[in-house]
Amino acid sequence: MSSLYEKTLATRRVFEGRALTIDILDIELPNGRKSTREVIRHTGAVCILGELPDGRFILIRQFRKAIDQEIIECVAGCMEVGEAPETAALRETREESGYEVETLTSLGSAYPVPGYCDEVHHFYHAKLKATPEALQLDTDENLYPIIVSEDEIETMIDNHEIVDAKTLLLWYKFLRHRKG
Amino acid sequence: MSSLYEKTLATRRVFEGRALTIDILDIELPNGRKSTREVIRHTGAVCILGELPDGRFILIRQFRKAIDQEIIECVAGCMEVGEAPETAALRETREESGYEVETLTSLGSAYPVPGYCDEVHHFYHAKLKATPEALQLDTDENLYPIIVSEDEIETMIDNHEIVDAKTLLLWYKFLRHRKG
Repeated sequence: MSSLYEKTLATRRVFEGRALTIDILDIELPNGRKSTREVIRHTGAVCILGELPDGRFILIRQFRKAIDQEIIECVAGCMEVGEAPETAALRETREESGYEVETLTSLGSAYPVPGYCDEVHHFYHAKLKATPEALQLDTDENLYPIIVSEDEIETMIDNHEIVDAKTLLLWYKFLRHRKG
Repeated sequence: MSSLYEKTLATRRVFEGRALTIDILDIELPNGRKSTREVIRHTGAVCILGELPDGRFILIRQFRKAIDQEIIECVAGCMEVGEAPETAALRETREESGYEVETLTSLGSAYPVPGYCDEVHHFYHAKLKATPEALQLDTDENLYPIIVSEDEIETMIDNHEIVDAKTLLLWYKFLRHRKG
């Protein structure tokens, strides 16, 4: 089977906002046909399942304007330019949950929307220290942490109270990793 | 705890391409502070795990320009404007895999990137008829179906050969649903 590679003929930056950057690429398909692809450029993000010493987990209740609703997610955030994923995971956990990480375990990575964005999600399980510090949110972050048991998370999944894909995937990855 | 709702003050459409549309929203946070949110508008997509009568599954090998690589995904595609998710699931399965659906089972839905896009993924398990028809691809779709066993999918996950988040989440949802 021949390669599916699409050769880039030209790149134009058509939008550069606060959070989103879009390039349009002129491409040539393997059959010689020409087309265009619209691509969002993203620095990548970290997704962390924080576990307290008592076995409960930290999730984040957050308003998301894109879907105009409050949803429940794992601790997550964008990597800064040049920042290692592990460093971002420690920083985001501290900022959003108020807890320091004791041990951090990688649960792999995945592309959430490879059809139009180069964003990669790096997944982690973090064992947290017992005592929280104050939250350190960005000035327009609109969220607060909640503490839930494993049974509560399972119920929230069954009741469609958790509908964020990265949080669901992180939870299934964690269960699979724990099972060994 | 007070609501986290962010009130929309104004909406400006700043980009409208072939596939992507971006709005910038001026918003007011619950604390009265003003900010902006960049939001990608999307019609939503369907993600289908197609299973053949012999118990093997259909996956799609596809080139994704956003990440500049060939990856393995489930059958998936955007809903057309006004199209019901179930109708889109039958259509995409026929177009991308060449098989007709015998029975379609919903496995729920999730938001892949609610931080910046209103896209929703509708997940399905589809039992397929035995005999394929010809593929009906869009003129610039660059993909072909592959047929794999359950053990092969598990190995591909463990070896990081499947790194598409919707495909991983769909597989875990299917295993959870089958377990009951």
